Order: sequence, then structure tokens, then C-alpha cells
Amino acid sequence: MKVAVVMGSKSDYPKLEEGIGLLRKYGVEVLVRVLSAHRTPRELEEFIKEIDEEVDVIIAAAGKAAHLPGVIAANTLIPVVGLPIKSSTMDGLDSLLSMVQMPKGIPVATVTIDAGLNAALMAMQIMSIKYPKLKEDLKDYRDEMARKVLEDDMSLRG
Amino acid sequence: MKVAVVMGSKSDYPKLEEGIGLLRKYGVEVLVRVLSAHRTPRELEEFIKEIDEEVDVIIAAAGKAAHLPGVIAANTLIPVVGLPIKSSTMDGLDSLLSMVQMPKGIPVATVTIDAGLNAALMAMQIMSIKYPKLKEDLKDYRDEMARKVLEDDMSLRG
Amino acid sequence: MKVAVVMGSKSDYPKLEEGIGLLRKYGVEVLVRVLSAHRTPRELEEFIKEIDEEVDVIIAAAGKAAHLPGVIAANTLIPVVGLPIKSSTMDGLDSLLSMVQMPKGIPVATVTIDAGLNAALMAMQIMSIKYPKLKEDLKDYRDEMARKVLEDDMSLRG
Amino acid sequence: MKVAVVMGSKSDYPKLEEGIGLLRKYGVEVLVRVLSAHRTPRELEEFIKEIDEEVDVIIAAAGKAAHLPGVIAANTLIPVVGLPIKSSTMDGLDSLLSMVQMPKGIPVATVTIDAGLNAALMAMQIMSIKYPKLKEDLKDYRDEMARKVLEDDMSLRG
Amino acid sequence: MKVAVVMGSKSDYPKLEEGIGLLRKYGVEVLVRVLSAHRTPRELEEFIKEIDEEVDVIIAAAGKAAHLPGVIAANTLIPVVGLPIKSSTMDGLDSLLSMVQMPKGIPVATVTIDAGLNAALMAMQIMSIKYPKLKEDLKDYRDEMARKVLEDDMSLRG
Amino acid sequence: MKVAVVMGSKSDYPKLEEGIGLLRKYGVEVLVRVLSAHRTPRELEEFIKEIDEEVDVIIAAAGKAAHLPGVIAANTLIPVVGLPIKSSTMDGLDSLLSMVQMPKGIPVATVTIDAGLNAALMAMQIMSIKYPKLKEDLKDYRDEMARKVLEDDMSLRG
Amino acid sequence: MKVAVVMGSKSDYPKLEEGIGLLRKYGVEVLVRVLSAHRTPRELEEFIKEIDEEVDVIIAAAGKAAHLPGVIAANTLIPVVGLPIKSSTMDGLDSLLSMVQMPKGIPVATVTIDAGLNAALMAMQIMSIKYPKLKEDLKDYRDEMARKVLEDDMSLRG
Amino acid sequence: MKVAVVMGSKSDYPKLEEGIGLLRKYGVEVLVRVLSAHRTPRELEEFIKEIDEEVDVIIAAAGKAAHLPGVIAANTLIPVVGLPIKSSTMDGLDSLLSMVQMPKGIPVATVTIDAGLNAALMAMQIMSIKYPKLKEDLKDYRDEMARKVLEDDMSLRG
Repeated sequence: MKVAVVMGSKSDYPKLEEGIGLLRKYGVEVLVRVLSAHRTPRELEEFIKEIDEEVDVIIAAAGKAAHLPGVIAANTLIPVVGLPIKSSTMDGLDSLLSMVQMPKGIPVATVTIDAGLNAALMAMQIMSIKYPKLKEDLKDYRDEMARKVLEDDMSLRG
Repeated sequence: MKVAVVMGSKSDYPKLEEGIGLLRKYGVEVLVRVLSAHRTPRELEEFIKEIDEEVDVIIAAAGKAAHLPGVIAANTLIPVVGLPIKSSTMDGLDSLLSMVQMPKGIPVATVTIDAGLNAALMAMQIMSIKYPKLKEDLKDYRDEMARKVLEDDMSLRG
Repeated sequence: MKVAVVMGSKSDYPKLEEGIGLLRKYGVEVLVRVLSAHRTPRELEEFIKEIDEEVDVIIAAAGKAAHLPGVIAANTLIPVVGLPIKSSTMDGLDSLLSMVQMPKGIPVATVTIDAGLNAALMAMQIMSIKYPKLKEDLKDYRDEMARKVLEDDMSLRG
Repeated sequence: MKVAVVMGSKSDYPKLEEGIGLLRKYGVEVLVRVLSAHRTPRELEEFIKEIDEEVDVIIAAAGKAAHLPGVIAANTLIPVVGLPIKSSTMDGLDSLLSMVQMPKGIPVATVTIDAGLNAALMAMQIMSIKYPKLKEDLKDYRDEMARKVLEDDMSLRG
Repeated sequence: MKVAVVMGSKSDYPKLEEGIGLLRKYGVEVLVRVLSAHRTPRELEEFIKEIDEEVDVIIAAAGKAAHLPGVIAANTLIPVVGLPIKSSTMDGLDSLLSMVQMPKGIPVATVTIDAGLNAALMAMQIMSIKYPKLKEDLKDYRDEMARKVLEDDMSLRG
Repeated sequence: MKVAVVMGSKSDYPKLEEGIGLLRKYGVEVLVRVLSAHRTPRELEEFIKEIDEEVDVIIAAAGKAAHLPGVIAANTLIPVVGLPIKSSTMDGLDSLLSMVQMPKGIPVATVTIDAGLNAALMAMQIMSIKYPKLKEDLKDYRDEMARKVLEDDMSLRG
Repeated sequence: MKVAVVMGSKSDYPKLEEGIGLLRKYGVEVLVRVLSAHRTPRELEEFIKEIDEEVDVIIAAAGKAAHLPGVIAANTLIPVVGLPIKSSTMDGLDSLLSMVQMPKGIPVATVTIDAGLNAALMAMQIMSIKYPKLKEDLKDYRDEMARKVLEDDMSLRG
Repeated sequence: MKVAVVMGSKSDYPKLEEGIGLLRKYGVEVLVRVLSAHRTPRELEEFIKEIDEEVDVIIAAAGKAAHLPGVIAANTLIPVVGLPIKSSTMDGLDSLLSMVQMPKGIPVATVTIDAGLNAALMAMQIMSIKYPKLKEDLKDYRDEMARKVLEDDMSLRG
């Protein structure tokens, strides 16, 4: 079980941290990279070639005209989970549309703006079709989430 | 290889047809259903329970306040690919945001508005991590797509 | 007179507090719950079944892809007042559209983004068609509001 | 059981027709009026005074800067269901925001853009807290809706 | 020369202060009022009747579903300058659309979001067609503005 | 009583026709011009200089990046009524924002997108502060509008 | 003088045709290509390498998540003029934001949605800093444009 | 090599500072001016006339209804790079649309909202078609950018 997490800028890292932690906690090997579709196109291309055999899912995070996941998706058949990052203008709408509105033929699996955790969970769900053990982990995770909601529920009802 | 395609309304079918055809062409078994998160919540719930063992990916299409993929995602660990359908107002923005902006913990892998083909291709890419044969099919498909672009290229250069 | 106030996350509580206070002040029994359409679907379903006889109005608050009120509305005939909560991106537009743009057949009575007070007042107006005493209370409340505006008016004219 | 349906312009009528038919089918008396908050403010005011005792719910439909439901709500305690109508520009967003974003104190129960049926159903749900017979009618209506979805489901599975 | 400045809430005052100061500086009598289209409809109506003879222009400022200028415009022939106020959600778009998108027949002269100064200047320009002295004042004001820009220009070129 | 109606392109004329007719019907002299802020800046400048003494109000209509009213407003003290025209993309939002969001100091009195009639009525309301006869005309016009609404009202009640 | 015009799909050609004609009319050599950033990434890369010495400006047109101009810009120092194409959803906003909101370091010179003519004119203006003859051509073109506006002006004044 | 940088207000300067520094570092002469299309139209016009022979590219920055670059572009054949500045409302959308949506015939080369650096780089790329030395500088700059990304990459992989 191996996931590559690529971000367009190091400043996107805080949005990804929780998700990376989750993947590692459940035994997924995580390759973390900062590579820009625009500033380092050649290094990105090399990276995609290198990983093509060994990685199950790629998570790509980017802001503004967030081309990173689309450019990766165009160069690999590994499923790409896109994480739109809200930057200082347009409240996340620019990254969302640049990511999700991919042309016919090259989809990106886009998740909630700024929610690195959701990107990680989607990666796990995708891998779980191959690694049944992850289904158990995801079930535990959901039980834990439900438990927290019910605790909050209790505290407000009390 | 089995995919469930669920739509909130029969009127969404034309947006899905091409994708369903593609899946079948490549030997994926496709279960096509019309089930509404709001008008048939109980039937939807039963359906999710039934398929939980046998389906690899679920594609869920819906318009307006497009809750269908999110509601399915909340009740299964199977990866859900969400297809936002543009309805008569708001130019697709309502379905897109209702689908992609899922809360922490329950992601939906959202693709291009109205692009049933992209939903199908994402489903194939996800399944390909388990069924290597699909990688070959996807590669053929991309080669075919590239060929068409290059034909168009030739015709305009001519 | 009984209202159920359900929120998707405990963090929505501050937006609801003033409204809950108002309902209680006017003698309405208020059931406060934290239940997520996505993280605790089963508990939510049970809750809806339980209350179906005893509650007059349900207020449901949620952010992002705010499915909570729609999912409740699909499972009960009790009128559901939806309160969209602004989250960290998209300035409230995502929750508003996810809530108000319900498909034909299952409406949600959506009120002003983040205005828990308006949700409470709408619940009271709805109940007032059955409990005439509430009409008096609402009239007093409006008189009080008008008085405050006129005081502000005086202070600026002075 | 009596509902007043007010529209800002006769051209809004086609969006309301199905809902008015539904109300009448279930024995609700419906008062249909064309009254503009801006072009006939005085007649609107008189109308609100007249109906104040005899009407259970008011449905108000308007497009563009859709003030009609808000202006009615400011002058009565009867619950007002607002129906935003999409006009020739802004794809319904102007009417939606003008209607739902009411200030603190005077809520409008806003439903799906252009969905007169949802306005009618919300009116019925509200009245049903006083007239239990309507609960049965609504249940029948929902059963009928579900039946149609399941027929569509059958036709696509076939 | 007399202008009525009406705001929907005292909290809008800081956005209007500079404009009110400008009007008074140039000898325009300014009537400042806090009156809500929704919370004090009757007092607003009375106010409109009272001023109908003596006021040249009305400036009306409001946020969210900003009906105030439209409601005033429906009840008087005095030109109404609308000032949309940005509130805590939707970045001013809700107030702008609720104000500018008035139906055929009852226009509101809408100016820049949050720019009370522009509302005041538009009021002065309107009055200047009757009071030629104001043309001189406006010319001075523009000369002064230009002077400030040119000073800034100098400081950056220096 | 004289109004200049300037449009950025002849294709905007159909949106203005009804308003021009109204002005002429009430005895207002109307100067109709096609002048572009970008394609004929010099002719526009000359035109503004020429009219500076004899025109009471300027109506300026433009689409897309609708600079015309703002550029005129920067070069005259005559009040400028701005009419945003919806073009083939962005549903009128681009023209609206380019027109209404003028910087501090140079306001444009913006009216409803595509509503040439409202531009004409606002011009008449502005002129009416100098020419009392127009108040009577506007009153007649409003009475006529009200009559039409009430006729529609009758026809639907009948 | 040589311009490369690249479009993501042959269906974008009608939006570019007028601009290509203009360039050719003024003696600019135009290389027309259909190449997709996502469907033919390798051919696009080769193309960029080939032209790197001989082309002055690149015009790149694309719709939806319009990555084409950005991907080209990342791989060349030739100035890239981006033309956003409106597709069937989101009214052009998706292509505009995906194109203009490029990250720091790799700009795209974005022009009006769907206006191939403006892309061509911007290419000519850029080349004119090296080929003074183009300044004359552009001047003629602008004179011609002005003439047409003034003809329209005459026809409406007549 | 000479660039004119014009901003509509001194408050836009911080967004431009980095770009101006970059241009100067690479030996480009930079003329910095504060001139408003609306507050100092005559001075702006004079400035455009003055520079028409000696400047290669104009960078124009403005917020809100950002007419400055369009007004300059209408009066010169020098390529104009437009920089939309986010102001206190509408999250930059108003300036972006007012700048990029120029009518047919007068394009503005619009870059990322608030990214003065991108405006400067586009100016350098444009000038580089005439001054080959700039190609080397831009290459160095891109190498430097790539180095920084790769450093960040290293630090996160470490």
C-alpha cells in the first residue's frame, strides 16, 4: 500500500498533514513531494515516470489555477485524488473549478476544498478494493468518528 | 469487475449513457439504478446493503442539491464517484458544491459536471489497481483519444 | 410545543444558541442534538423515527455540503427549517445551495445563512398556526425589535 | 385549510401552476393573487391586512430583486414560503439571495428556485401540524413519488 | 438642498459617516434615520409620507436581502440612491443583487458596495441639476481628489 | 429636459428602445449615440465636452467590461445612470460589477441588468427634482403600471 | 512574424477563426494546431520544443479546466496569450479562472472569454514592439473599428 | 527596455513592489506612476501621449471596477498587462472581470489577481521577443524558482 502525496507549494503542507498522518497510522507508505506543474515541469514528469509501477494512488494538492492533479492525471493511469487549496483570493472557487472541470477523458477525483483528510480517506477507500484489511481500518475510523459525534451529542443534550 | 451506476432521476440518464457503454465495452459489469436519496430513501438504503460485497465502485449522479453520492458514501466504504448534473438553474454550481464539499470524514470523488464519461473512466482507473487488465484497456482508450486529437490536428493544419 | 434542533457538528452551536434561547423563553420545549447525516446516519435515522409523533418542527443546521436538513426531510413529514452555516471556504454559498436547491417533492424551508434566530422565529411562526398563544409572543417579539430600531433611530437623530 | 399564493408578476404563474393544482387536489382552499411589492404596494398592504385571520400559510413568488415574500413577512405573522423565480439574467441567484438572506427577525422559508411544487408541499407540511388529515395526504403523495422513481428504476434495469 | 439618509441598521452607520460629513460640509441638510423595511415597516411608511415634499434625494443603505431602498422607491418618486452593505457572508453580492436587480418600473440608483461617499456624491450630482452651486462644489471636490492622487503620484516617482 | 443615451455598441439598442420611447413620450428630448469608451475614446471625449451644458442626465449602456458609464462619469458632473447589458458569457455579472463597483469619488447610478426602462425612469426621477411636471408624469406612469398588475390580478382570480 | 495558435479541441476553432484571419491578413505567419494538455501531453511537449526558436507569440485556447496555456507557459519563455472558451456549464467562469489564476512565476496573458479576435490583436501588439510595421497595421485596424462605430452612431442618430 | 507601471491608487503599491524590484534587477527601466482613470483622466491621457514612443510595455493595476488598463489600452498600441487588485469586497472577482472582459478590439493581457510578480514577468517575456538578453534572465529566474521548489521538496522528503 503506497500513496504519493504531491503538493504544488510547501505552503500547502498544513492542509495535508492530518491526512498524511492518517495514512501512515494505517500502515500506508507515503511519499511526500513538493513539485510544481509550472515551476518544475521536468522534475514532475520524471517523478510520474518513476512511480508508475509502485504507487496505488496519487494525492495532488494545489491552489489558484490548480493544474497539478490534471497534469499528473494526463501522464499516468494511477487514480489521482485532487485537493483544491483555498488561496488569498476567490475563496477556493478558482482551485476547485481548475481541478474538477477536467476535459473528457482525463478525470481527477476531486474532494472538499482544504480537506486533506478527505483526500487521504478517499485514497484509502480506493486502495481498499485491493487490500481488504483497509476496509477494517476505515470501519474503525468511521466508528471512531461516529463516537466523537455522539459524545458531542451527549455533551449538548446533558 | 462490477460498478453500480445510481442516478437520482431518470432524466440524468443521457449524461451517463456514454460512460455506461464504455464500462460494458471493457467487460465491466454495470448495475444501473434510479434511486433518489430523498424520494426513495429506504430503497436506496436497501440497495447499498445488498451491493456491499460485490461492487467495486459506485458512480452516483445527481442535480440541484445533489445529496445522492454523499448519502451513499455515508453508508458504505466502497469508493463513490460523484457526477454533478447541471439542472435548469445555477449552471451546475449547485450540484457541484453539494457534491464536492462533503464534510470531513466522508469524501466523494467528484468529477466534471455532466461528464458521465469521466465518471466511468475514474471508476476504471480505481478498479485498475486491482485488475491489471484494465490498465491495458485504459491505455488503449487514451491512445485512441490521442489519435482522434491528432487527426483533428491534421485536418486543421492541412 | 416542541422543536428538535439538530446540528451536523458541535461547532455549529454558537450560531444556534440565540435561537434556542428564544424558543425556550417562549415556552417551547427544545430537543438539542448533534447528529451528522454522514458520520452518524443510523443514529440520525433512529432519532427521526423516535420524534415523529411528538415534535412540531425540526430545525437542522449544517455547513459545506449541508445535506442534514434534506436527509431529515426525506424521512419525515414534519416541516424542516434549514439553517445554512458558513464554513471556512465559499462564504456560505455551498451550504446555502446544498440546502435550498432540494429536488422536486422534498422541500426544506431555508433561512438566512448563519441566522439561528431566524430559524427559531420561523419555527415559532409555523407552530403559531396551531398554538395561537405563540402569535402573541411573536407580536411582542416584533414590537420589542421595532422598539430597538426606533431607539437606534433616536440615538442617531439626536 | 387556506393558502394565499401571491406572485409579483403574472409571468411567474407557470412556475406555480403545478403547486396550486396539488393544493386544490388535497382540499386546500387557494387564493391566487398577482400583487407587486413595488408596483402595487398599497394593494399588497391591504391584502395582507384582509387575510390575516383566515389564511394558514402564504406562498410568495418573485424574480430578480425578489422583495415580495420579505415585504409580506414584515407585515404578518403567518409563515411565508418564498419561491425564487429565475429571470433572464443571473440564473436565479439574484432572486434566491434577495429572498433567503432576510435580516435577523423576519425570516422567509425559502425553497428551490422555480419549484412551485416544493412551495406547495412546504405549505402542506406546515399546515399538517394543525390538520392531521394532511399528513395522510402527504404520505400518499410521497408514496406516489416513490412509486414513480421505482418505475423509472425498473425501466432502466429492464 | 435636503437629503434623507436611511439605514436598515445602526451598524451600517460607519459606512455612511464620511458621506454624511461631505454633504453637510457642502451645505446640504441631512436627515439621518435608522428604519428597517422589515422590522419597522409602518414607521418607514410614515417617514416616506412625511418627507415627500421637502427632500430632494434619499440615500438608503442596507445589507443582506437589502430591500430598504426598493421599498422606499416603491412609495415615493424622489430618486433613491442605494448603498449595498457587505455583511458577514456572501461578500456583498447578496446586498448588491437585492438592490440593483429591481423589477421593471421601480429603479434604484445603486452605487459601489460599502462606499457611502459615492452615495453622497451621487446625491450631490443629482441635486446639482437643480442647484447650480453644487456643480462648483463638486468640481472643487474632484480637483481636491485629483490633487491627492497627484501627490501620491509624486511621492512614488520621487 | 434633455437626456443623452449613449451605448457602447449598436447591438445594445434593443435593450434601450423602450426606455427611449418612454422619455420621448413624456416630452424629454433624447440624444441617442453609439460611442465606445475603447474604440472611439476621442469622439466620446468630444461628445462629453459638447453636451456638458445642455444635458440633464446621461444614460450609458454597455456589456462585458462595461467601462462606458464610468469613463463618462469621470469627465462630467452630470449624473450618469449606468445600464449593464448581459453579453454572451457570465450572465450579466461582468457588466454589473464593472459598472457599479466604481472607485471612491466617481459614482455611477447603476440599475437592473438589461432594463433600459428602469434607466429611463431613473433619469426622469432625477430630472423631476428640477421639472415638477415630470412628477405628475411619473405618477401617471406608476398608476398605469399598477392598473396593469391589478388587471393581471383580476384575470388570475377570475 | 510568426504566431502559433494552439487549441485544446477542434470544437474551439470557430472562436479562433476571425483572429487567425486577421493575423494572416496582416502578413503574420500562423501555425494552427489542435493539441491537448491532457490527451496528447507528449505531442504538446514536442511541439513546444520545436517552435521555441521561430515563434514570437503563442495563442492557446481551451475550455473547462483550461490548463493548456499554463502548461505551455511552463515549458517556454515565449509569451502565451490565453483565450478562455465557454463550455456547456459554468458560463466561462471555469476556463477564465483556470487560465488567469496562474501561480507566481508563470503568467498567462489572459483575454476576454471567447474573443479570439482579442487574442490575435494582443499577439500583434506584443509583436509590434519588435516589428514596427505592425504598429501601422494596428492603427489602421483601430481606425477601421472606430469608423464602424461612428457609422452605427450615424445610423441611430439619423 | 522600459516599462511603465501605473496604479489606480497608491494603496495598490505593495502588490506591485516585488515585480518592480524584479524588473529593475534585470536592468529594465521602470517608470512608476499613480494615475486614476476616474480621478485624474486628463493627467492619465497626457501620460499616455508622452510615453507612446519610449515604453515597451505598460503594467496597469487597479481594484474594484478596474477600468485603468482598459482605458490605457484604448489610447495606445503598447501592450498593456492588467493586474487585478482584490479590494475589500467581492474577493477580486470585480476587478478581474472589469479587466479581462474587454470588448472586441481592445484587449488587456490580464494576469493573476494581486500577483504583481506575474505582471512583471509577463512584461519581461513580451520584451524578450525584442531583447534576447531578457530570455537569459528569465531562464535564470525560472531556474532559481525551480531550485527553491526542489529545496522545499527536499526539506519535506527529508
